Amino acid sequence: MSDCPAEFVTLAERLADAARPVITRYFRTPVAIDDKADDSPVTIADREVESAMRAILAATVSGHGILGEEHGRINCDAEWVWVLDPIDGTMSFITGVPVFGTLISLFHHGRPVLGIIDQAILNERWLGVAGRPTTLNGRPVNVRACPDLGSAYAFTTSPDLFGPDTRPGWNKVAAAVKRTRFGADCYAYALLATGFADVVVEAGLKPYDFGALVPVITGAGGVMTDWAGQPLTIASEGKVCAAGDARLHAQALGLLA
Amino acid sequence: MSDCPAEFVTLAERLADAARPVITRYFRTPVAIDDKADDSPVTIADREVESAMRAILAATVSGHGILGEEHGRINCDAEWVWVLDPIDGTMSFITGVPVFGTLISLFHHGRPVLGIIDQAILNERWLGVAGRPTTLNGRPVNVRACPDLGSAYAFTTSPDLFGPDTRPGWNKVAAAVKRTRFGADCYAYALLATGFADVVVEAGLKPYDFGALVPVITGAGGVMTDWAGQPLTIASEGKVCAAGDARLHAQALGLLA
Repeated sequence: MSDCPAEFVTLAERLADAARPVITRYFRTPVAIDDKADDSPVTIADREVESAMRAILAATVSGHGILGEEHGRINCDAEWVWVLDPIDGTMSFITGVPVFGTLISLFHHGRPVLGIIDQAILNERWLGVAGRPTTLNGRPVNVRACPDLGSAYAFTTSPDLFGPDTRPGWNKVAAAVKRTRFGADCYAYALLATGFADVVVEAGLKPYDFGALVPVITGAGGVMTDWAGQPLTIASEGKVCAAGDARLHAQALGLLA
Repeated sequence: MSDCPAEFVTLAERLADAARPVITRYFRTPVAIDDKADDSPVTIADREVESAMRAILAATVSGHGILGEEHGRINCDAEWVWVLDPIDGTMSFITGVPVFGTLISLFHHGRPVLGIIDQAILNERWLGVAGRPTTLNGRPVNVRACPDLGSAYAFTTSPDLFGPDTRPGWNKVAAAVKRTRFGADCYAYALLATGFADVVVEAGLKPYDFGALVPVITGAGGVMTDWAGQPLTIASEGKVCAAGDARLHAQALGLLA
């Protein structure tokens, strides 16, 4: 994996710092909820957070691309591309459940090399950088060993993530594991990186959904790829499988293939 | 609904106070997880929390019944019965997601007249008492208006809660509402009482799962019954429907009937 210059790590943390007061101001207030073209919800909080982060990027770096969930793409063929999801888990945000997250990632030549999962309400920040140990609020975290699906705890956000082509894969994993839990969005991956979950399987994710997760999982000792075992890139179609234990990852891919 | 003596409210808060340090000590530590006869998970934290609460009850009241998820039932034909779930949402607890809750309820002649939903990690306590406004950390909370299923936000903990007899009911509600969210256990009801969700539909709940929820929902202006619209009692079989708006509740029951 490419190296990530230290000044870009500092910049990513500045973006997360800028997101927090906006999120805190709107959380559990009656914000208007709009439906996007894909029927997913969006609020003024999502838009303001992304605008705040883009303003910092515009004032700080030049020649970098930006891909954000709410405000579109600029220069995405650049060597460095910032990929932003101001509030991943908008459904949690708008129902007052503090397990959504701000996702900040930096792609180098199409591969994610830096990821932040920031939970503003709980004051939790996971930081993953290529070649470094993942940290939670500055302290290293690690995945846990779990060699067999039969003893694994599996997460997915909703059974409704899966369409006719992907539902059988999830159903096989769900039937094989010890227990399943729903409804955590990015927070499931953060907990996997911290050793409290074993496998996450999702489909239909966009680069702004998974970009930050890959460095966080990888730097904690885990594995995260698409369902064919290929690295996730800015062009991936968004079927993802993350596991703390490489043996578990291989077993899950066997069911998802 | 019966009145609830003030000293019992004070006692219920003491039970919640006793639960907190135990939960905080074990949260996000690698506790051993046992499987119960019904295959649900339990940890030392569940058992210690319930023991701490039962010790306080034993030292404070006499002639009252106790029904707890982990340590069984005593004198459950009594006029007053304390019904306890030390950690509702054990799956959240063991995976490090802070949306589980300690549920404390008091039944009078078989009907719940006091409920506490206590979230130790987030320092949030919902208190519902018959005839009083529900509070969150001492401040009154209210449900929100939502007259139509088509604009409602619906919660259920997992699609796996439903068996062949109850799944069609949930599927009809899920198809009718604006959006669904999974994975919140008791926290979904707390958020409904606070105006951030509109309807919760579940099945297979026990009195220790729903006893605390009824006074919290009712005191916030909502409605919570079984799927036939009957009041929930200590003998109910645990198909529950809670809504913030009585019109919505009636529509949901129409689909669940």
